[in-house]
Amino acid sequence: MTAQAAIALDIDFRVLADTPDDSAAQVCTGTQIGNFRSADDVLAFGAGCDVVTFDHEHVPGEHLTALEELTEVRPGGPALRFAQDKGAMRDRLSSLDSLKQLGVRCPRYRRVASLADVALFAAPAGGTGGGWPVVLKATSGGYDGKGVWICHNENAVADVVAHGLGLIAEEYVPFDRELAVLVARSPAGQGAAYPVVQTVQQDGVCREVISPAPGLNPPVATVAQQAGLAIAAELGVTGLLAVELFAVDDELIINELAMRPHNCGHWTIDGATTSQFEQHLRAVLDLPLGAPVMRAPSAAMVNVLGGDDPDLYSRLVHVMAADPGVRVHLYGKAVRPGRKVGHVTVVGEDVAQLRDRGWRAANYLRHGTEEPDADAETGVLPELPARREHAERSG
Amino acid sequence: MTAQAAIALDIDFRVLADTPDDSAAQVCTGTQIGNFRSADDVLAFGAGCDVVTFDHEHVPGEHLTALEELTEVRPGGPALRFAQDKGAMRDRLSSLDSLKQLGVRCPRYRRVASLADVALFAAPAGGTGGGWPVVLKATSGGYDGKGVWICHNENAVADVVAHGLGLIAEEYVPFDRELAVLVARSPAGQGAAYPVVQTVQQDGVCREVISPAPGLNPPVATVAQQAGLAIAAELGVTGLLAVELFAVDDELIINELAMRPHNCGHWTIDGATTSQFEQHLRAVLDLPLGAPVMRAPSAAMVNVLGGDDPDLYSRLVHVMAADPGVRVHLYGKAVRPGRKVGHVTVVGEDVAQLRDRGWRAANYLRHGTEEPDADAETGVLPELPARREHAERSG
Repeated sequence: MTAQAAIALDIDFRVLADTPDDSAAQVCTGTQIGNFRSADDVLAFGAGCDVVTFDHEHVPGEHLTALEELTEVRPGGPALRFAQDKGAMRDRLSSLDSLKQLGVRCPRYRRVASLADVALFAAPAGGTGGGWPVVLKATSGGYDGKGVWICHNENAVADVVAHGLGLIAEEYVPFDRELAVLVARSPAGQGAAYPVVQTVQQDGVCREVISPAPGLNPPVATVAQQAGLAIAAELGVTGLLAVELFAVDDELIINELAMRPHNCGHWTIDGATTSQFEQHLRAVLDLPLGAPVMRAPSAAMVNVLGGDDPDLYSRLVHVMAADPGVRVHLYGKAVRPGRKVGHVTVVGEDVAQLRDRGWRAANYLRHGTEEPDADAETGVLPELPARREHAERSG
Repeated sequence: MTAQAAIALDIDFRVLADTPDDSAAQVCTGTQIGNFRSADDVLAFGAGCDVVTFDHEHVPGEHLTALEELTEVRPGGPALRFAQDKGAMRDRLSSLDSLKQLGVRCPRYRRVASLADVALFAAPAGGTGGGWPVVLKATSGGYDGKGVWICHNENAVADVVAHGLGLIAEEYVPFDRELAVLVARSPAGQGAAYPVVQTVQQDGVCREVISPAPGLNPPVATVAQQAGLAIAAELGVTGLLAVELFAVDDELIINELAMRPHNCGHWTIDGATTSQFEQHLRAVLDLPLGAPVMRAPSAAMVNVLGGDDPDLYSRLVHVMAADPGVRVHLYGKAVRPGRKVGHVTVVGEDVAQLRDRGWRAANYLRHGTEEPDADAETGVLPELPARREHAERSG
């Protein structure tokens, strides 16, 4: 999707991909095959670039440091570390006066290495949290709910600790709903914030994004945007920054950060004047940022997960015939059950109708019927906004 | 731009390009280098494709015939002939009862081979035309005003006839303005019509497109759309069909046909639910067509012509800073004075403001100032709608 944006701006865009079958490699003429875990591969790639950026957080920090000797790296290693290391992120965000002034906080957290550490964290402590369940997170390497465990007792904790990963324990936040704010920041210091969206997760995987978040109090939306811009500035982010938030009434609690085009912004391709992919390119190239405003009153994006039948194309015909207005984006990935293989976006006025159309299209692309998955927690349309205390949370 | 659309639909999209520097070759992984005038190259390319389509009309008819033995060719040779041969197009359109019923006609025309033929055509004839000036058109090979001559006397005709080209003479139509209608038709017979646009030509080159055409009587717009769909159906077009029209009061007169994504539809990338490029892919692949509706009340597209300084990128920064809402599309072409090297689109409500923003951006990209070209017939904003009897016409 970034390659599409690069075409319009006539940017010489290159990709370091593991294999020629990678989604980006299929559509990018400037593909170099290599492994992002290999310093040699990363440096050989970077040597041919004016600016290097990322579509995930997993390039090792020492490679980033070496890369920064060669060329511009945006976001830079010092900023990217806060998207790579959840402990470092919590420490840094908890120290920011700007967030305190906005009333935006992190969950109570602690680095833990043993069952005893977690038991101590869970012990009644007053203040903002304590007690069970406890959320354990791998400090690095997680995505799409992987690396996040909601533990209701010490047995569950023991299983996680046994993996030997670096961990933090976090207060379990019984959120009303999840929100996200996507901002961009350029090296020149220009910032731009997209409307605050609501995200809907199932089994730790983002299923749906609605922009703007329905029924959100405007002052709360403004606080979320200010928090996003403040974090981007204080952490020295260049490029995009996605901030995932828990909302409890009008309180905002920071869940995760990502510094790249993010699933919470896929709706912008069809629903905003400037897509997040173009915005990321503009930001990392230090070009003036594009308008982050909506093209229509509302947009609903629903992720397309793989089903049992890999033949997406035959089902695409039905979706196009059933709804000529639905925008379909397929990623060229091999279809595996539950894997994100694309998304659909519907733009317009009536949020309930947009969501209905989006879910019908995504369900059909998954398994040839507009009905929801048998294993879904919720129906075609997860109730919204609703207090969903027992829902899984994104990681 | 078609490659961008192919990415979202995960279509294995390949290009036959003259050189690796061609715009499409720069951004398409499936590029085969070859010459469309060579039967061997065309057939070797087509052998690897399920469907072959075109972004110009110049592939020789005999190659199309051979190609159709190998694979699906859309539009097919018999339809494409009417976009390749202006004499055949005039004969066919003049015979269509559906157009007669709609009251849409062609200019009076005649095949001519000599000065005497043209002089006879220009002799006072009553009815729809006659007299000077006479428009001479090469029956094939023209584009962007090339192959079109407005001759005010016999001396001018003699110069054209001396080229030895196949020619038709046409009545000069003193139009109020130029319109265009873009439709799509699939092999299954589904049709879709975009809103009727106004186009503004200078020196035979399209400079600006406004959608929908300002102040057009709705019944006239409907007639134009019906004419487009009728022509597509009667000529057996698959894919896009652009019909360029002269408007004289509420009368519509057919100027030219094109069977491919067309400059009059570039606004659809940012201004319509389905871009013309995706629509063309859907149509030639016999997928259900997408909604051809506008995303906003109006859109203005202004072509970016090359200026004296080839460094577009440095000027892009200014344009982005001056107007974060303008959508810029650059084509990766070498900049030469007057060459179309990109376009800008502005989408919103106030047509005058959209046009102003579009022209400012395009002028700046051309020569580093928002002021119009010194050689332009008209200012930043060609008056619209206006009777422009002496303007050049597109070819």
